[in-house]
Parts: sequence; C-alpha cells; structure tokens
Amino acid sequence: MHSIASKIAALGRLEHRLFGKDFLLTFEKSPDELKAVVEIAELLKAMHAGNIDARFFSTGLAISIFRDQSTRTRFSFASAANLLGLALQEFDEKKSQVAHGETLRETANMISFLSEVIGIRDDMFIGKGHTYMQAVGAALDDGFAHGVLPQRPAIVNLQCDIDHPTQSMADLCHLKQHFGGDYEALRGKKIAMTWAYSPSYGKPLSVPQGIITLMTRFGMDVTLAHPEGYDLLPETLQVAEKNAAESGGRFRVVNSMAKAFEGAHVVYPKSWAPFRVMQERTRLYEQNDQKGIAELEKDALANNARFKKWECTPALMEKTKGGQALYMHCLPADISGVSCQEGEVAAEVFEKYRLDTYREASYKPFVIAAMIVSSRFRDPAALLDHLARKGARHLGAL
Amino acid sequence: MHSIASKIAALGRLEHRLFGKDFLLTFEKSPDELKAVVEIAELLKAMHAGNIDARFFSTGLAISIFRDQSTRTRFSFASAANLLGLALQEFDEKKSQVAHGETLRETANMISFLSEVIGIRDDMFIGKGHTYMQAVGAALDDGFAHGVLPQRPAIVNLQCDIDHPTQSMADLCHLKQHFGGDYEALRGKKIAMTWAYSPSYGKPLSVPQGIITLMTRFGMDVTLAHPEGYDLLPETLQVAEKNAAESGGRFRVVNSMAKAFEGAHVVYPKSWAPFRVMQERTRLYEQNDQKGIAELEKDALANNARFKKWECTPALMEKTKGGQALYMHCLPADISGVSCQEGEVAAEVFEKYRLDTYREASYKPFVIAAMIVSSRFRDPAALLDHLARKGARHLGAL
Amino acid sequence: MHSIASKIAALGRLEHRLFGKDFLLTFEKSPDELKAVVEIAELLKAMHAGNIDARFFSTGLAISIFRDQSTRTRFSFASAANLLGLALQEFDEKKSQVAHGETLRETANMISFLSEVIGIRDDMFIGKGHTYMQAVGAALDDGFAHGVLPQRPAIVNLQCDIDHPTQSMADLCHLKQHFGGDYEALRGKKIAMTWAYSPSYGKPLSVPQGIITLMTRFGMDVTLAHPEGYDLLPETLQVAEKNAAESGGRFRVVNSMAKAFEGAHVVYPKSWAPFRVMQERTRLYEQNDQKGIAELEKDALANNARFKKWECTPALMEKTKGGQALYMHCLPADISGVSCQEGEVAAEVFEKYRLDTYREASYKPFVIAAMIVSSRFRDPAALLDHLARKGARHLGAL
Repeated sequence: MHSIASKIAALGRLEHRLFGKDFLLTFEKSPDELKAVVEIAELLKAMHAGNIDARFFSTGLAISIFRDQSTRTRFSFASAANLLGLALQEFDEKKSQVAHGETLRETANMISFLSEVIGIRDDMFIGKGHTYMQAVGAALDDGFAHGVLPQRPAIVNLQCDIDHPTQSMADLCHLKQHFGGDYEALRGKKIAMTWAYSPSYGKPLSVPQGIITLMTRFGMDVTLAHPEGYDLLPETLQVAEKNAAESGGRFRVVNSMAKAFEGAHVVYPKSWAPFRVMQERTRLYEQNDQKGIAELEKDALANNARFKKWECTPALMEKTKGGQALYMHCLPADISGVSCQEGEVAAEVFEKYRLDTYREASYKPFVIAAMIVSSRFRDPAALLDHLARKGARHLGAL
Repeated sequence: MHSIASKIAALGRLEHRLFGKDFLLTFEKSPDELKAVVEIAELLKAMHAGNIDARFFSTGLAISIFRDQSTRTRFSFASAANLLGLALQEFDEKKSQVAHGETLRETANMISFLSEVIGIRDDMFIGKGHTYMQAVGAALDDGFAHGVLPQRPAIVNLQCDIDHPTQSMADLCHLKQHFGGDYEALRGKKIAMTWAYSPSYGKPLSVPQGIITLMTRFGMDVTLAHPEGYDLLPETLQVAEKNAAESGGRFRVVNSMAKAFEGAHVVYPKSWAPFRVMQERTRLYEQNDQKGIAELEKDALANNARFKKWECTPALMEKTKGGQALYMHCLPADISGVSCQEGEVAAEVFEKYRLDTYREASYKPFVIAAMIVSSRFRDPAALLDHLARKGARHLGAL
Repeated sequence: MHSIASKIAALGRLEHRLFGKDFLLTFEKSPDELKAVVEIAELLKAMHAGNIDARFFSTGLAISIFRDQSTRTRFSFASAANLLGLALQEFDEKKSQVAHGETLRETANMISFLSEVIGIRDDMFIGKGHTYMQAVGAALDDGFAHGVLPQRPAIVNLQCDIDHPTQSMADLCHLKQHFGGDYEALRGKKIAMTWAYSPSYGKPLSVPQGIITLMTRFGMDVTLAHPEGYDLLPETLQVAEKNAAESGGRFRVVNSMAKAFEGAHVVYPKSWAPFRVMQERTRLYEQNDQKGIAELEKDALANNARFKKWECTPALMEKTKGGQALYMHCLPADISGVSCQEGEVAAEVFEKYRLDTYREASYKPFVIAAMIVSSRFRDPAALLDHLARKGARHLGAL
C-alpha cells in the first residue's frame, strides 16, 4: 500500500462530483468517482490501522433502515458511522407505516433533522428497493430545498433489488489489492461470477448484478454462469455489456460452471433465485398469497435441487488459471458438509480461502464510510490530509 | 432570527431556576423559565445549522423509557442526546418489572450511575404517567442524596397523561417564529385547539392539554372546541383559565369546530379520546378485562363516527382570519383520502401546510436538548457563549 | 479514598500482564492483576465523579452479546463503553446462527473489524458459556494473527456458567471500601455466601462461584452454606480451597444458614439452582424436551419450597458479628412481602442495607471499564495520569 500522503495526492487528482449525491448504483458513477471511493476507503482503512482519528463529524446521526435481516452489513454500517464520529440510530420500520407516499415523505424528514446519512437495505422485492431509495431521496430533497432540513443527508444503498454497491466496491478493493494495488492489473483478468447450488431459496440477485456491472468497468473479462432459467434482471446484463464495450473488457453469459472456471483468475460462486421467481414472489407477497408463496418456494427448491452439481469443488478449481484462482464470496457461504449438507462450495476449497473472504469483507465498513464522506464533503482529500496530521484514535500511542 | 451573540445576551437576562429541576409540566415553570428553554432551543438550532459543535458533554448516557410506541419522539430524543454529546441507551422495560415501588426505586438507580438524563414517555393511562415520572424523580433524589449517584440525571417528560411539554414547547417556538420572533406578537392572537374526527380510538389527551395550558401563558386567545363528551382532564381546563386570567389572554370552550375557526389566526385540529373513555380504559387494563376493552373500543369508535363532520376542510379554513390561519399538527395527521378514508384534515389543506408542519416538528430535538441543558447546567448562557466560540461540528468548514 | 495521583502511583507499582488478555475467570489472574483492575476501576470512578474526561478512545465499537436477559449488566456495559469513548453495538444473536464452529469463527471476525471489546453473557447452560467465550477468543486470535483484524478486541465475561467476574470484582471493590480501603483489612474477615429461598428456579451459579473463588484470594474466611443438594460446580470448590490455602484464608461448606451467619462480618444470601439441576436442564434444552423441562421446573420448585426457612431475617442478622454484618446482594433480590411473598431476605433487613446494595452495584460499570482498559493498553497508569491532567467530561466546571 502506498503511503497515506501519496494516496491523498492521488485522490486529489481524481475528478468527481460525488458531493451532494446519493450512492445508489455503481453504474451511475464515473470511473473516477468509483476510484475516488476506493481511494478514500483505502485511506480510512490505513488511518484506522495506523491509529489516526478519522472523525469528520463531532456529532450527527447515521440512520439505518433494514427492510431485510442483516448482521454483517448492520455492523459495517455501524462501524462506518462510528469511524466518522456519527451515532447510529436504527429505524425500525413497520412496512405498513412507511411504504406509501405521504408517510414516506413525512417520515424521511422527521428522522433527518440532525442526520448526515441514511443507509437503506431493501433487496427482497423486484422493482421496489431502488424505487424506495429514490423516493426517500426525493423526500429529503424536498425537505432540504424548503429549509425543513439544515442539511441533506446522504443515502447509501446497503443492498437493493438492482445493485449491492457496498459489497461490489469492497470486492473491487479486494481484487485491486490482490492484483498488486493497480487498476491496470485488473485489465483482462478473467472473473467467473457463477451461480451455485444452495438448499435455500429466494437469495437476492444484487450481488451477481453488482459484480457484472462493476467489474466490467475496469476492463475485466467477466463471465456470468448459471443454469438455464436463473436469469438476472435483464437491464443489468445490458449495463454489463455496455460497460465491457466501453472499458475494453469482455462480458459473456454461459450455462456451465466448468466453462466459466476455465482459465479464470477469480471465481465468485454464489446462489441466487431466478429473476422470474423473485418477480413472482413479489407479486404473491403483494397479494399476501401465503399458499402461492409456499408453492413457489417448494417449486423453486425442487428446481434448485436439479443443479446440485453447481458446487465449487477442488476439481473445478483445478480448471482455473494455474489452479490458483482467487475464490470470493460475500459471506455467509453455504459450505458443503459444514453449514449445510450440499452447498455452494466444498469445505476444502472454502477453508483454503477462508481468510481471504474475511479480508474481502474487511473493506466494507471503510467503503461505506467513503461513500458518506464523498457525498457529504466537497474536498475529501484536503480533509483527510487534515485528519492525518491531527491526532490519535486511541491512547495506545502515548 | 437574531444573531447568536444577542440571543445569548437575552438568555442571560432571563431569571430562572431550571437547574437541578425536572421538566415535567410547562405550567410548573415560570414565564421566564419557558422563555429560557425556547431561547436555548433556538440557539442550539442556529448553532447546529451554523456548524457549531454543541457538545456540553464528552461522555454520559441519555436513557429513554418508552412505555408507548413512538418514532418521531424517539428520534428527537436520540438527536438531542447526540447533539449534546450523550450516548442514547434505550431502556426496554417490561411493565411488570418496573411498575411497582421497590423495583422502580432500584431500577432508576441501577441505570443512572453514568446517566445525565432520562426521557420518559408514558401517556396512555390516566393518573399514571405523571405519577410514574415523579416516582422516578424521587428515586433519583434518594440515590443522589445518599451518594449512590454522582449526579442527579434530569427527567424530561416525553409525553404523559397530563402534558406533552416537548411538543407544546416546539409548537411555541413555531408560533413565535411564525409571528415574527416576538412573544408580544402572540398577545391576542386567536388559536383554535379543536377536536377532529379520526377513524382510530384512544389517542392521548396530552397534546390539547399541553396547548391550552401553554398558549394561555402568553396572552393568546385560546379556544378549545370538541363535541360534547370529548372532555379533557378537568384540572387542565382550570389551569388554562387561570393562565389566561394572569397573562391577559382568553380561554373558552365551545362545541363547534366552525365557531372555533371564526377569525382564528391559528388552528390545531386533532383527534383525542374523551377523558372518561381514557379513564375507563385505564380501569379495564388494570383488571385485564379484554372483553371490556374491545367493547369500549367499539363504542368509542361508533361515537367518533357521529362526528365525521369535524374535519379541517378548505371551507372551514375560509372562516379563519383572512382565510389564512396557520394550520398546526403534531403529526402524523389523519389526512382524508391519503392516510385514511375520512380523517382530521382535508388533503388540500394539509398539503398547503405540509412543510409548515415539518418545520413545527423540527424544533422538537432542540427543545429536548434545551430542557437537558437547562436542568444540568447552572449557567447555560455562559456555556453556549463558550461553545459558540469554540469549534465546528463537522469538517465541512475547513 | 486516596488522591488520584497517589492511586495512579500505586497502580504503577503493581506487576501485571493483563495487556492483550481476555478477562474470563478471576482465578486465572494473579493477585496483582486483580488489584490492578480494582485500582483502575476506583480511579475511573473517581475521575467520573470529579468531572474528568476518561476517553481512552475517540472511536471504536464495544460489542455486547447477551445470550440471557439482563438489564443492569447491559447498562453497566453500555456505561463502561461510553465512559471510554466507545460506541455500543449489541449483537442480537439467534442461537442457531452462531452456536457452531464455522459460523462462530466467521461471525466473531465479521463484527470485529473496528471493535475494541466484546462483552459476553452466557450463563444459563452448564459447560457452555465459558467454552463459548474461549471459542470467540480463538476466532479473534486467528483473525488478528492473519491480518484480518487490525486489533484484537478484548473479551470481557459478563457472566458465564463458571464465574461472574464483573460482579465479584465489583463486590470486592465494595468490600475493600467498606473495610477502610485496604486489602489487609479483608484478611480474616468472615463472609457467609449462603443459599436463600426464592420462588423462582434456575438461577445461575456464577455469583456464589465467583464469590467463593475470589474472596478466598484475599485471606477472607469464606463460608459457603446451602441445603443439601444445592451444590456448586465441584471445580469451583476446589479452586476456593486452594485459594484459601495460598492466601492464608479459610474456606468451608456448611448446610445451615444460621451456622454461616455466626460471627460473620459479611453475609451474601442468594438463591441458586443445584448444579445437577442446571446440568439436567442443559441436557433437556439440547434435546428440546419441553415436557422434561416443565417437569424439572416443577420438581425443582417443590424442592426449593422445602427450604423456605433459608431467609435472611433480622433474627439471623443478630447472629452476625455484633449483629452488624454487611448484607450484600447482586440485585435484584427476592424480598419477602415486597417483590414476592416469601423470598431471600426480609423486607426490614433489605431496607436497612438497600443503599449499600446500590453502592455495591455502582462499581460494576467501572470494573468493566477497567477490564477493557487493562486488556487494550500496555500502561494504564501512564494513560490515566495523562487523562487526569487533560480535560473535563462536561462543561459544568466552566
């Protein structure tokens, strides 16, 4: 890793307009904007490890809204808030209260008088999560424009139906580090984002969608693999294709895990539900059709079971570049014989890369913090420079 | 708004004995004491907007006890705590554990060793909430007097059966601002605190009680309007009458929304349950008479339905002073055709004043913070002056 | 209490290797290590009372994992975290998710990227709690050794199946203060740790086990009293015997409350479940044998009822040294005629010592903070000296 000073200088050279913008989808951001977030995340990580106080705020709230269960994203957001000097306040929403127009507009303002950021996770229903985040953003814009709010809190997408930017950006940090710290090294590297078998159903699509849309930005050779029918949101494939064309990378879809693994530098085997199943699920939940939901789950699990061979085994890993591809996972993985009988990955493969997956995850708090900082402050480079010269995070250095 | 320095000077001229006292009922406080809280709230709001660090504490806990559901008061209290440098700790009380003597006395001390403030919401049962807060106060007095507690945490009433001081004081800030920032401008202004129809039952009485007892302190011409039978706690009417007599204001009760609206400068249409229904409800809950509770609810809703005409419509608003009265609400309002079929206020009226109601709510965190500061510090003016000269709340100013 | 400066000097003279170690069992620590924790706790308490800012950290998380309900330990941990500048983050674990190997190892790392301490309460199942804490510790060691975690969070045992060190150490602070502030004064003092009747079942063993293993370290004359069958974990008795032999104290077990009270300087009457019942209970829960659990409870309560005479009455108190023994309890006590019909202690006795039990409890937040500080910093004495010279905790001193 470069020194903090040289990283701050590099950050200063990036052109970005992240200030005052929400971080909802990576593919709405320019390459320099993505690099700026990575750079800030790496700086904050280095400062934390180096016992440098990184508080951009002395007070202020960081609100989290989790419309789906989460442990690690919850802790990542809590950590990011704390690192920057904000106090976490979880908003325990009943769906009925905030789901519709008037109430959402009002509630968004009511919780934001002293808030600097709102992190939202809403990933389970197709066509809902991203829309919800945009609606919260519009409500905040309205309140800020009319002097109700003294500041416009940033919104950070902690996972929606389209993208999972805090995960994919943490993955990008991990890949960059793995290949030597340079974006150029990512160019042409083959990454296999592949479906894998899991004995559960209804896993969101946002991770594979996030990976194919982000990694194609940096010239990577991205292969998406899944059994027939396990399609992602069609528009994310279009984005991936366009990104690959623009960056000089490559994007293709195959229906074989083995084919995707061939010569891959990186593999990312992970289960998800077919787009159409998620769409149907959304419809059934809207109609509160419990019988339909149960039937859908049964069918989906039966269909999953046809593809138990989609497991990341040592034999498959042998097919990767030198048999040494980097295994990635957003965690928790379904590990065969460990967390389930048959799952996404063989225990032997997972154990070999276990600590790597932890390191992959370790970037997330700092990526979230970087998204907050870049949205709330005009000149992060200057402020990071200020902080780096200022003081210790704890007394251990005395 | 006056400059921060001139406001601090004005605060310094007010005589008050808020130090060491709890904030339970506005009508226990002198006019200067109420004005001091308003002044501190306005100062803290201006300092927050002006990026001034307002931490009176570097560490310390702010405990909240919610014996009734709440979103906005919860966030207001969390915001106030954070603004002053305190960490929020919610006390998730099981009613059976703390409701009676010995346990309350013990628990109040056990949670207070490092606490600076306890905010309590207990509004649902007539004769209980205020009594409970007094009991907590007595337990803290006992612990502090005997050296168990190194400090006596302040108690802030976040809504009880008698009063809702954080709401009514925020409303006072809003009215003061609306009429030009001067208490003299409130003199003789007509405010209609009126019942309004809602398809729900058992809404607490503390808002109308808080409004009639507070606004009569400042020479306002206060009309309370409700259908026959929808009485408030009798003693609050007596307080309102006495206050009006003392301040040169006026207080009357009418049984017509239209009559109350005539020539009003301000209207506050809001549903509540009749005092006798709330009393009966308390009795039934004490006896855990579920059948009785269900019957009471059915009867009360049927009775409400006789008064669906009590809706704040454009036609009624026409009757107010120049057709331009300020509409107020503590939120959330029951908006006809939006949040319910038939409710307290027509959608057209609410939308016209929507942002005003948000601004009204925006004072609450700062009012709570002002109550904490004035109870815990002997000379808030000097300390605010110190803070105003000291530092930024966030790095944005660099 | 000695002055802060002289206490810091005394602390500096103690030899301890608490840095980098977890605080799981008092009997794993040397006498100087225990004294160091007491000294730091007393210093932090004095600094708090004296309005000295005691933040060792500017940011960082303090994680709590409560596998059993708790109010006061929850608040004590929250207070300790806040005092040191850490933000509390509660980990709301579902037992099924973290109970087994792989998941525990992963989760422990996932929540710890920015964490400084993990406080764990897991006291209900024999053979589980301490083992769980050790497993979390091993997972953190693994993550720290491999660069996953930039720091190794300290683990503080907030109550396990074997020991309750934050309670027993707070009790030690209280005893030391009671007898004049000097460990030498504890030598030869008689303490009766006795079972007492309670109308509840399944109370953990960790308090009596903690008391007999800790107080025997300081030359006290410890009597454990309980009805036949209400045995503690056998190994804790062995530890108590060994400790007494080493320290020149005494340890014996009797089956009579009256006998234990005779000439006692201190009495600690408290209910617990027999070790064998707790063991059987653990087995039944593992098999999810609801019928068996219900039967066990019925039998255990019936057996308890045979010993209603085991109540701390005024008559029994008369048997103590001069009739003036110090009554202790970890709270909440089962007070006859107050919190239950027949319980551990007569109302008259409890009321006489009520404030003493509050003072006993008041040490706990500072003991927890001391455990954190001594585990995370190499030279607490120097850092406390630095803090004592630095600044105020709140603006009250201006």
